Amino acid sequence: MKIVIIGSGNVATHLSIALQNAGMQLLQVFSRSKASASALALQLNIPFTTEWNDIRQDAELYFYAVSDDALNDLIMRPLAPEALHVHTAGSININIFEPHKKRFGVLYPLQTLSKSKTVDFRKVPLFTEGSDDETRMIIQSLAFKLSDCCYELNSSQRMQMHMAAVFCCNFVNHLYAIAGDIVKDAGIPFDILKPLIAETADKVQTLTPKASQTGPAVRNDLITMEKHLLSLQSHPDYAALYRLISEMIKSKAENH
Amino acid sequence: MKIVIIGSGNVATHLSIALQNAGMQLLQVFSRSKASASALALQLNIPFTTEWNDIRQDAELYFYAVSDDALNDLIMRPLAPEALHVHTAGSININIFEPHKKRFGVLYPLQTLSKSKTVDFRKVPLFTEGSDDETRMIIQSLAFKLSDCCYELNSSQRMQMHMAAVFCCNFVNHLYAIAGDIVKDAGIPFDILKPLIAETADKVQTLTPKASQTGPAVRNDLITMEKHLLSLQSHPDYAALYRLISEMIKSKAENH
Repeated sequence: MKIVIIGSGNVATHLSIALQNAGMQLLQVFSRSKASASALALQLNIPFTTEWNDIRQDAELYFYAVSDDALNDLIMRPLAPEALHVHTAGSININIFEPHKKRFGVLYPLQTLSKSKTVDFRKVPLFTEGSDDETRMIIQSLAFKLSDCCYELNSSQRMQMHMAAVFCCNFVNHLYAIAGDIVKDAGIPFDILKPLIAETADKVQTLTPKASQTGPAVRNDLITMEKHLLSLQSHPDYAALYRLISEMIKSKAENH
Repeated sequence: MKIVIIGSGNVATHLSIALQNAGMQLLQVFSRSKASASALALQLNIPFTTEWNDIRQDAELYFYAVSDDALNDLIMRPLAPEALHVHTAGSININIFEPHKKRFGVLYPLQTLSKSKTVDFRKVPLFTEGSDDETRMIIQSLAFKLSDCCYELNSSQRMQMHMAAVFCCNFVNHLYAIAGDIVKDAGIPFDILKPLIAETADKVQTLTPKASQTGPAVRNDLITMEKHLLSLQSHPDYAALYRLISEMIKSKAENH
Protein backbone atom coordinates (compact mmCIF):
# COMPACT_ATOMS: atom_id res chain seq x y z
CA MET A 1 0.00 0.00 0.00
CA LYS A 2 1.34 3.42 -1.05
CA ILE A 3 1.12 5.97 1.71
CA VAL A 4 1.80 9.69 2.16
CA ILE A 5 2.44 10.98 5.69
CA ILE A 6 1.04 14.42 6.46
CA GLY A 7 2.81 15.70 9.57
CA SER A 8 6.26 15.17 11.02
CA GLY A 9 5.74 15.34 14.78
CA ASN A 10 5.87 12.63 17.43
CA VAL A 11 2.93 10.56 16.17
CA ALA A 12 3.89 10.99 12.48
CA THR A 13 7.41 9.82 13.27
CA HIS A 14 6.52 6.69 15.24
CA LEU A 15 3.64 5.77 12.92
CA SER A 16 5.66 6.11 9.73
CA ILE A 17 8.52 4.05 11.13
CA ALA A 18 6.02 1.36 12.10
CA LEU A 19 4.42 1.48 8.64
CA GLN A 20 7.78 1.15 6.94
CA ASN A 21 8.79 -1.71 9.24
CA ALA A 22 5.55 -3.45 8.28
CA GLY A 23 6.52 -3.27 4.60
CA MET A 24 4.32 -0.38 3.50
CA GLN A 25 5.60 1.89 0.79
CA LEU A 26 5.88 5.44 2.12
CA LEU A 27 6.00 7.83 -0.85
CA GLN A 28 6.53 11.17 0.82
CA VAL A 29 6.35 13.27 3.98
CA PHE A 30 4.49 16.60 3.97
CA SER A 31 4.95 19.11 6.77
CA ARG A 32 4.85 22.88 6.99
CA SER A 33 8.05 22.77 9.00
CA LYS A 34 11.02 22.15 6.72
CA ALA A 35 13.38 21.18 9.55
CA SER A 36 11.00 18.62 10.93
CA ALA A 37 9.87 17.28 7.52
CA SER A 38 13.41 16.85 6.28
CA ALA A 39 14.52 15.10 9.50
CA LEU A 40 11.73 12.56 9.25
CA ALA A 41 12.19 12.10 5.49
CA LEU A 42 15.89 11.46 6.07
CA GLN A 43 15.09 8.91 8.75
CA LEU A 44 12.67 7.12 6.39
CA ASN A 45 14.89 7.63 3.35
CA ILE A 46 12.02 9.09 1.30
CA PRO A 47 11.33 12.57 -0.19
CA PHE A 48 9.53 15.37 1.62
CA THR A 49 7.72 18.55 0.65
CA THR A 50 6.53 21.63 2.49
CA GLU A 51 4.22 22.65 -0.38
CA TRP A 52 0.67 21.29 -0.35
CA ASN A 53 0.49 21.37 -4.15
CA ASP A 54 3.56 19.16 -4.39
CA ILE A 55 2.02 16.31 -2.43
CA ARG A 56 1.92 13.21 -4.60
CA GLN A 57 -1.57 12.38 -5.82
CA ASP A 58 -0.94 8.70 -6.47
CA ALA A 59 -0.98 7.33 -2.92
CA GLU A 60 -3.77 5.02 -1.80
CA LEU A 61 -3.73 6.31 1.76
CA TYR A 62 -3.03 9.71 3.33
CA PHE A 63 -2.29 9.76 7.05
CA TYR A 64 -2.93 13.06 8.85
CA ALA A 65 -0.79 13.07 12.00
CA VAL A 66 -0.92 16.79 12.71
CA SER A 67 -2.25 19.09 15.43
CA ASP A 68 -6.02 19.36 15.67
CA ASP A 69 -5.92 22.94 14.33
CA ALA A 70 -3.81 21.96 11.33
CA LEU A 71 -6.10 19.00 10.64
CA ASN A 72 -9.12 21.29 10.36
CA ASP A 73 -7.29 23.39 7.81
CA LEU A 74 -5.61 20.63 5.79
CA ILE A 75 -8.55 18.30 5.19
CA MET A 76 -10.42 21.14 3.46
CA ARG A 77 -7.73 21.34 0.79
CA PRO A 78 -8.22 19.25 -2.35
CA LEU A 79 -6.14 16.06 -2.39
CA ALA A 80 -6.52 12.70 -4.14
CA PRO A 81 -10.33 12.44 -4.05
CA GLU A 82 -10.37 8.66 -4.63
CA ALA A 83 -7.84 7.82 -1.92
CA LEU A 84 -8.42 6.93 1.72
CA HIS A 85 -7.86 9.76 4.23
CA VAL A 86 -7.13 8.79 7.85
CA HIS A 87 -6.46 10.94 10.89
CA THR A 88 -4.73 9.80 14.11
CA ALA A 89 -6.30 12.13 16.69
CA GLY A 90 -7.89 10.87 19.89
CA SER A 91 -10.55 13.50 20.33
CA ILE A 92 -11.57 14.37 16.77
CA ASN A 93 -14.78 12.86 15.44
CA ILE A 94 -14.55 10.86 12.23
CA ASN A 95 -17.27 13.09 10.77
CA ILE A 96 -14.80 15.98 10.47
CA PHE A 97 -13.95 14.46 7.06
CA GLU A 98 -17.51 14.22 5.82
CA PRO A 99 -17.89 17.47 3.87
CA HIS A 100 -14.47 17.08 2.28
CA LYS A 101 -13.60 13.45 1.56
CA LYS A 102 -15.28 10.39 0.10
CA ARG A 103 -13.44 7.58 1.93
CA PHE A 104 -12.02 8.26 5.34
CA GLY A 105 -11.29 6.89 8.78
CA VAL A 106 -9.29 7.05 12.00
CA LEU A 107 -6.34 5.14 13.42
CA TYR A 108 -5.58 6.38 16.94
CA PRO A 109 -2.49 5.03 18.74
CA LEU A 110 -2.96 5.07 22.51
CA GLN A 111 0.59 5.76 23.61
CA THR A 112 2.79 8.65 24.71
CA LEU A 113 5.11 9.09 21.75
CA SER A 114 8.19 11.31 21.80
CA LYS A 115 10.67 11.34 18.94
CA SER A 116 13.57 10.77 21.31
CA LYS A 117 12.14 7.56 22.80
CA THR A 118 11.65 4.35 20.83
CA VAL A 119 8.59 2.20 21.58
CA ASP A 120 7.57 -1.30 20.59
CA PHE A 121 4.75 -0.36 18.22
CA ARG A 122 3.40 -3.93 18.23
CA LYS A 123 2.37 -3.28 21.85
CA VAL A 124 0.69 0.07 21.17
CA PRO A 125 -3.11 -0.26 21.29
CA LEU A 126 -4.65 1.06 18.05
CA PHE A 127 -8.25 2.21 17.77
CA THR A 128 -9.78 2.30 14.31
CA GLU A 129 -12.93 3.63 12.68
CA GLY A 130 -13.99 3.85 9.02
CA SER A 131 -16.53 5.72 6.91
CA ASP A 132 -18.00 2.51 5.46
CA ASP A 133 -17.59 -1.25 5.82
CA GLU A 134 -14.87 -1.57 3.20
CA THR A 135 -12.87 1.31 4.64
CA ARG A 136 -13.28 -0.06 8.17
CA MET A 137 -11.82 -3.36 7.06
CA ILE A 138 -8.91 -1.80 5.16
CA ILE A 139 -7.95 0.29 8.21
CA GLN A 140 -8.38 -2.64 10.59
CA SER A 141 -6.23 -4.91 8.49
CA LEU A 142 -3.57 -2.21 8.26
CA ALA A 143 -3.72 -1.77 12.05
CA PHE A 144 -3.16 -5.48 12.59
CA LYS A 145 0.00 -5.25 10.49
CA LEU A 146 1.33 -2.63 12.93
CA SER A 147 0.21 -3.83 16.34
CA ASP A 148 -1.04 -6.84 18.27
CA CYS A 149 -3.71 -4.79 20.07
CA CYS A 150 -6.26 -3.36 17.62
CA TYR A 151 -9.83 -2.42 18.43
CA GLU A 152 -12.71 -0.75 16.64
CA LEU A 153 -14.09 2.13 18.64
CA ASN A 154 -16.59 4.82 17.71
CA SER A 155 -15.64 8.49 17.94
CA SER A 156 -17.30 9.05 21.29
CA GLN A 157 -15.59 6.04 22.91
CA ARG A 158 -12.29 7.12 21.37
CA MET A 159 -12.64 10.55 22.94
CA GLN A 160 -13.25 8.95 26.36
CA MET A 161 -10.17 6.80 25.76
CA HIS A 162 -8.11 9.88 24.94
CA MET A 163 -9.40 11.69 28.03
CA ALA A 164 -8.47 8.71 30.21
CA ALA A 165 -5.01 8.83 28.63
CA VAL A 166 -4.70 12.49 29.59
CA PHE A 167 -5.26 11.49 33.23
CA CYS A 168 -3.08 8.39 33.40
CA CYS A 169 -0.28 9.68 31.18
CA ASN A 170 -0.10 13.46 30.65
CA PHE A 171 -1.27 14.35 34.18
CA VAL A 172 0.77 11.54 35.72
CA ASN A 173 3.86 12.88 33.98
CA HIS A 174 3.15 16.31 35.43
CA LEU A 175 3.01 14.76 38.92
CA TYR A 176 6.45 13.28 38.20
CA ALA A 177 7.62 16.82 37.38
CA ILE A 178 6.18 18.19 40.63
CA ALA A 179 7.80 15.40 42.66
CA GLY A 180 11.07 16.24 40.92
CA ASP A 181 10.71 19.91 41.92
CA ILE A 182 10.03 18.95 45.53
CA VAL A 183 13.07 16.70 45.93
CA LYS A 184 15.21 19.27 44.10
CA ASP A 185 14.21 21.83 46.76
CA ALA A 186 15.66 19.39 49.32
CA GLY A 187 18.87 18.94 47.31
CA ILE A 188 17.98 15.42 46.16
CA PRO A 189 18.19 14.31 42.51
CA PHE A 190 15.11 13.14 40.57
CA ASP A 191 16.81 9.76 40.02
CA ILE A 192 15.97 8.67 43.52
CA LEU A 193 12.26 8.63 42.62
CA LYS A 194 12.67 6.31 39.64
CA PRO A 195 12.23 2.96 41.41
CA LEU A 196 9.06 4.29 43.09
CA ILE A 197 7.68 5.58 39.79
CA ALA A 198 8.43 2.24 38.10
CA GLU A 199 6.87 0.17 40.89
CA THR A 200 3.75 2.37 41.04
CA ALA A 201 3.12 1.68 37.34
CA ASP A 202 4.10 -1.98 37.69
CA LYS A 203 1.68 -2.57 40.57
CA VAL A 204 -1.43 -1.75 38.51
CA GLN A 205 -0.35 -4.20 35.82
CA THR A 206 -1.54 -6.92 38.24
CA LEU A 207 -3.51 -5.21 41.06
CA THR A 208 -6.40 -2.78 40.62
CA PRO A 209 -5.66 0.91 41.36
CA LYS A 210 -7.93 0.57 44.40
CA ALA A 211 -5.92 -2.36 45.79
CA SER A 212 -2.67 -0.52 44.99
CA GLN A 213 -3.51 2.71 46.77
CA THR A 214 -1.16 3.55 49.67
CA GLY A 215 -0.19 6.79 51.43
CA PRO A 216 -1.52 9.29 53.97
CA ALA A 217 -4.81 10.15 52.20
CA VAL A 218 -6.16 6.60 51.96
CA ARG A 219 -5.16 6.04 55.63
CA ASN A 220 -6.81 9.39 56.48
CA ASP A 221 -3.56 10.32 58.24
CA LEU A 222 -4.48 13.97 58.93
CA ILE A 223 -1.29 14.81 60.82
CA THR A 224 0.98 13.84 57.92
CA MET A 225 -1.22 15.64 55.41
CA GLU A 226 -1.11 18.81 57.54
CA LYS A 227 2.70 18.60 57.70
CA HIS A 228 2.90 18.28 53.92
CA LEU A 229 0.56 21.20 53.34
CA LEU A 230 2.57 23.35 55.73
CA SER A 231 5.71 22.47 53.87
CA LEU A 232 4.07 23.32 50.52
CA GLN A 233 3.33 26.91 51.56
CA SER A 234 5.84 28.27 49.05
CA HIS A 235 4.07 26.34 46.23
CA PRO A 236 0.38 27.32 46.56
CA ASP A 237 -0.51 25.49 43.32
CA TYR A 238 1.06 22.25 44.57
CA ALA A 239 -0.79 22.70 47.87
CA ALA A 240 -4.12 23.18 46.04
CA LEU A 241 -3.50 20.03 44.05
CA TYR A 242 -2.45 18.15 47.20
CA ARG A 243 -5.72 19.12 48.91
CA LEU A 244 -7.90 18.27 45.92
CA ILE A 245 -6.44 14.82 45.19
CA SER A 246 -6.20 13.87 48.89
CA GLU A 247 -9.90 14.68 49.34
CA MET A 248 -10.73 12.56 46.28
CA ILE A 249 -8.68 9.61 47.56
CA LYS A 250 -10.31 9.86 51.01
CA SER A 251 -13.83 10.04 49.67
CA LYS A 252 -13.19 7.17 47.24
CA ALA A 253 -11.89 5.06 50.14
CA GLU A 254 -14.95 5.91 52.26
CA ASN A 255 -17.51 5.26 49.52
CA HIS A 256 -16.25 1.83 48.56
CA MET B 1 21.26 -8.96 65.22
CA LYS B 2 18.12 -9.83 67.20
CA ILE B 3 15.11 -7.84 66.12
CA VAL B 4 11.49 -7.39 67.18
CA ILE B 5 9.00 -6.07 64.63
CA ILE B 6 6.32 -3.76 65.97
CA GLY B 7 3.54 -3.61 63.40
CA SER B 8 2.19 -6.05 60.84
CA GLY B 9 1.05 -3.86 57.96
CA ASN B 10 2.49 -3.39 54.48
CA VAL B 11 5.83 -1.88 55.56
CA ALA B 12 6.27 -4.26 58.51
CA THR B 13 5.67 -7.21 56.20
CA HIS B 14 8.09 -6.26 53.44
CA LEU B 15 10.75 -5.02 55.87
CA SER B 16 10.67 -8.12 58.04
CA ILE B 17 10.90 -10.43 55.04
CA ALA B 18 13.90 -8.43 53.81
CA LEU B 19 15.51 -8.58 57.27
CA GLN B 20 15.02 -12.32 57.47
CA ASN B 21 16.38 -12.80 53.94
CA ALA B 22 19.44 -10.82 55.00
CA GLY B 23 20.08 -13.27 57.83
CA MET B 24 18.78 -11.20 60.74
CA GLN B 25 17.19 -13.02 63.65
CA LEU B 26 13.59 -11.88 64.02
CA LEU B 27 12.42 -12.77 67.53
CA GLN B 28 8.79 -11.74 67.48
CA VAL B 29 6.04 -9.71 65.86
CA PHE B 30 3.90 -7.37 67.94
CA SER B 31 0.65 -5.94 66.59
CA ARG B 32 -2.64 -4.92 68.13
CA SER B 33 -4.43 -6.80 65.36
CA LYS B 34 -4.34 -10.52 66.04
CA ALA B 35 -5.30 -11.52 62.51
CA SER B 36 -2.62 -9.42 60.96
CA ALA B 37 0.08 -10.27 63.57
CA SER B 38 -0.54 -13.99 63.28
CA ALA B 39 -0.48 -13.90 59.45
CA LEU B 40 2.89 -12.15 59.41
CA ALA B 41 4.29 -14.35 62.20
CA LEU B 42 3.23 -17.42 60.26
CA GLN B 43 4.89 -16.11 57.12
CA LEU B 44 8.12 -15.48 59.07
CA ASN B 45 7.79 -18.64 61.13
CA ILE B 46 8.30 -16.75 64.41
CA PRO B 47 6.04 -16.05 67.42
CA PHE B 48 3.74 -13.05 67.74
CA THR B 49 2.01 -11.20 70.55
CA THR B 50 -0.79 -8.66 70.79
CA GLU B 51 0.15 -7.71 74.38
CA TRP B 52 2.69 -4.95 74.88
CA ASN B 53 3.90 -6.48 78.12
CA ASP B 54 4.69 -9.75 76.36
CA ILE B 55 7.14 -8.17 73.93
CA ARG B 56 10.56 -9.73 74.38
CA GLN B 57 13.01 -7.45 76.15
CA ASP B 58 16.17 -9.12 74.83
CA ALA B 59 16.24 -7.77 71.26
CA GLU B 60 18.96 -5.37 70.17
CA LEU B 61 16.69 -3.54 67.76
CA TYR B 62 12.97 -2.67 67.76
CA PHE B 63 11.46 -1.63 64.44
CA TYR B 64 8.30 0.47 64.63
CA ALA B 65 6.43 0.03 61.34
CA VAL B 66 3.05 1.29 62.46
CA SER B 67 0.71 4.17 61.65
CA ASP B 68 1.86 7.59 62.77
CA ASP B 69 -0.84 7.70 65.45
CA ALA B 70 0.15 4.31 66.83
CA LEU B 71 3.81 5.33 66.81
CA ASN B 72 3.09 8.34 69.04
CA ASP B 73 1.38 6.08 71.51
CA LEU B 74 3.76 3.10 71.44
CA ILE B 75 7.08 4.86 71.85
CA MET B 76 5.92 6.32 75.15
CA ARG B 77 5.56 2.85 76.61
CA PRO B 78 8.55 1.40 78.45
CA LEU B 79 10.50 -1.13 76.38
CA ALA B 80 14.13 -2.34 76.46
CA PRO B 81 15.82 0.94 77.48
CA GLU B 82 19.27 -0.12 76.28
CA ALA B 83 18.16 -1.28 72.84
CA LEU B 84 18.00 0.65 69.57
CA HIS B 85 14.53 1.93 68.56
CA VAL B 86 13.94 2.68 64.89
CA HIS B 87 10.84 3.96 63.10
CA THR B 88 10.12 3.66 59.37
CA ALA B 89 7.89 6.69 58.75
CA GLY B 90 8.59 9.23 56.02
CA SER B 91 7.19 12.32 57.69
CA ILE B 92 7.98 11.79 61.37
CA ASN B 93 10.95 13.62 62.81
CA ILE B 94 13.61 11.55 64.51
CA ASN B 95 13.21 13.74 67.60
CA ILE B 96 9.84 12.11 68.37
CA PHE B 97 11.91 9.50 70.25
CA GLU B 98 13.90 11.99 72.30
CA PRO B 99 11.86 12.16 75.51
CA HIS B 100 11.38 8.40 75.59
CA LYS B 101 14.42 6.53 74.28
CA LYS B 102 18.17 6.65 74.65
CA ARG B 103 19.32 5.25 71.27
CA PHE B 104 17.08 5.68 68.28
CA GLY B 105 16.88 6.29 64.56
CA VAL B 106 14.95 6.04 61.32
CA LEU B 107 15.00 3.69 58.34
CA TYR B 108 12.51 4.90 55.72
CA PRO B 109 11.90 2.73 52.63
CA LEU B 110 10.83 4.85 49.65
CA GLN B 111 8.51 2.42 47.94
CA THR B 112 4.81 1.65 47.61
CA LEU B 113 4.48 -1.58 49.53
CA SER B 114 1.35 -3.73 49.52
CA LYS B 115 1.27 -7.16 51.12
CA SER B 116 -0.12 -8.72 47.96
CA LYS B 117 2.74 -7.54 45.71
CA THR B 118 6.33 -8.70 46.08
CA VAL B 119 9.13 -6.19 45.46
CA ASP B 120 12.86 -6.54 45.04
CA PHE B 121 13.91 -4.96 48.34
CA ARG B 122 17.52 -4.59 47.16
CA LYS B 123 16.21 -1.91 44.76
CA VAL B 124 14.18 -0.03 47.36
CA PRO B 125 15.89 3.26 48.32
CA LEU B 126 16.39 3.40 52.09
CA PHE B 127 16.88 6.67 54.00
CA THR B 128 18.51 6.45 57.41
CA GLU B 129 19.09 8.74 60.37
CA GLY B 130 20.48 8.07 63.83
CA SER B 131 20.53 9.73 67.25
CA ASP B 132 24.35 9.63 67.50
CA ASP B 133 27.32 8.61 65.38
CA GLU B 134 27.39 5.02 66.56
CA THR B 135 23.66 4.57 66.03
CA ARG B 136 23.87 6.18 62.59
CA MET B 137 26.52 3.69 61.56
CA ILE B 138 24.65 0.69 62.92
CA ILE B 139 21.50 1.66 61.02
CA GLN B 140 23.43 2.47 57.85
CA SER B 141 25.23 -0.83 57.89
CA LEU B 142 21.93 -2.65 58.45
CA ALA B 143 20.39 -0.71 55.54
CA PHE B 144 23.22 -1.79 53.24
CA LYS B 145 22.46 -5.40 54.08
CA LEU B 146 18.91 -4.90 52.81
CA SER B 147 19.28 -2.63 49.79
CA ASP B 148 21.76 -1.36 47.22
CA CYS B 149 20.44 2.22 47.50
CA CYS B 150 20.98 3.63 50.99
CA TYR B 151 21.30 7.30 51.87
CA GLU B 152 21.53 9.35 55.03
CA LEU B 153 18.94 12.09 55.10
CA ASN B 154 17.87 14.43 57.88
CA SER B 155 14.26 14.53 59.04
CA SER B 156 13.35 17.59 57.02
CA GLN B 157 14.76 16.16 53.77
CA ARG B 158 13.05 12.86 54.48
CA MET B 159 9.72 14.64 54.85
CA GLN B 160 10.25 16.33 51.46
CA MET B 161 11.10 12.93 50.02
CA HIS B 162 7.91 11.46 51.44
CA MET B 163 5.85 14.37 50.08
CA ALA B 164 7.38 13.87 46.64
CA ALA B 165 6.43 10.20 46.90
CA VAL B 166 2.85 11.17 47.65
CA PHE B 167 2.76 13.08 44.35
CA CYS B 168 4.55 10.58 42.12
CA CYS B 169 3.06 7.44 43.67
CA ASN B 170 -0.12 7.89 45.73
CA PHE B 171 -1.55 10.67 43.57
CA VAL B 172 -0.41 8.99 40.38
CA ASN B 173 -2.21 5.84 41.44
CA HIS B 174 -5.36 7.85 42.00
CA LEU B 175 -5.08 9.20 38.45
CA TYR B 176 -4.91 5.58 37.27
CA ALA B 177 -8.17 4.98 39.18
CA ILE B 178 -9.83 8.01 37.54
CA ALA B 179 -8.69 6.90 34.08
CA GLY B 180 -10.13 3.47 34.85
CA ASP B 181 -13.47 5.04 35.79
CA ILE B 182 -13.52 7.05 32.56
CA VAL B 183 -12.89 4.10 30.26
CA LYS B 184 -15.36 1.99 32.24
CA ASP B 185 -18.03 4.61 31.50
CA ALA B 186 -17.29 3.98 27.81
CA GLY B 187 -17.52 0.21 28.25
CA ILE B 188 -13.76 -0.32 27.90
CA PRO B 189 -11.71 -2.40 30.39
CA PHE B 190 -8.88 -0.86 32.47
CA ASP B 191 -6.45 -3.35 30.87
CA ILE B 192 -6.30 -1.27 27.72
CA LEU B 193 -4.55 1.52 29.63
CA LYS B 194 -1.74 -0.70 30.95
CA PRO B 195 0.76 -0.25 28.09
CA LEU B 196 0.31 3.53 28.31
CA ILE B 197 0.78 3.52 32.09
CA ALA B 198 3.91 1.38 31.76
CA GLU B 199 5.42 3.52 29.00
CA THR B 200 4.68 6.78 30.85
CA ALA B 201 6.70 5.51 33.82
CA ASP B 202 9.37 4.02 31.58
CA LYS B 203 9.91 7.27 29.68
CA VAL B 204 11.06 9.21 32.75
CA GLN B 205 13.61 6.52 33.57
CA THR B 206 15.66 8.04 30.71
CA LEU B 207 14.04 11.38 29.75
CA THR B 208 13.18 14.23 32.13
CA PRO B 209 9.49 14.73 32.93
CA LYS B 210 9.69 18.00 30.98
CA ALA B 211 11.01 16.23 27.85
CA SER B 212 8.42 13.46 28.31
CA GLN B 213 5.37 15.70 28.53
CA THR B 214 2.81 15.16 25.76
CA GLY B 215 -0.93 15.84 25.43
CA PRO B 216 -3.38 18.68 24.87
CA ALA B 217 -2.29 20.93 27.77
CA VAL B 218 1.38 21.19 26.81
CA ARG B 219 0.30 21.87 23.18
CA ASN B 220 -2.22 24.42 24.50
CA ASP B 221 -4.85 22.60 22.42
CA LEU B 222 -7.87 24.52 23.77
CA ILE B 223 -10.44 22.80 21.55
CA THR B 224 -9.56 19.32 22.81
CA MET B 225 -9.45 20.47 26.43
CA GLU B 226 -12.93 22.04 26.04
CA LYS B 227 -14.26 18.78 24.60
CA HIS B 228 -12.86 16.83 27.53
CA LEU B 229 -14.30 19.24 30.08
CA LEU B 230 -17.71 19.05 28.42
CA SER B 231 -17.55 15.30 28.56
CA LEU B 232 -16.58 15.40 32.27
CA GLN B 233 -19.75 17.30 33.26
CA SER B 234 -21.09 14.30 35.15
CA HIS B 235 -17.84 14.14 37.21
CA PRO B 236 -17.37 17.69 38.55
CA ASP B 237 -14.41 16.60 40.72
CA TYR B 238 -12.61 15.10 37.72
CA ALA B 239 -13.33 18.28 35.75
CA ALA B 240 -11.88 20.46 38.55
CA LEU B 241 -8.76 18.32 38.61
CA TYR B 242 -8.53 18.40 34.80
CA ARG B 243 -8.66 22.22 34.85
CA LEU B 244 -6.11 22.58 37.65
CA ILE B 245 -3.47 20.22 36.25
CA SER B 246 -3.93 21.46 32.66
CA GLU B 247 -3.33 25.04 33.82
CA MET B 248 -0.20 23.92 35.68
CA ILE B 249 1.16 22.07 32.63
CA LYS B 250 0.46 25.07 30.39
CA SER B 251 2.10 27.57 32.70
CA LYS B 252 5.11 25.29 33.25
CA ALA B 253 5.52 25.00 29.45
CA GLU B 254 5.27 28.78 29.03
CA ASN B 255 7.69 29.63 31.82
CA HIS B 256 10.48 27.35 30.67
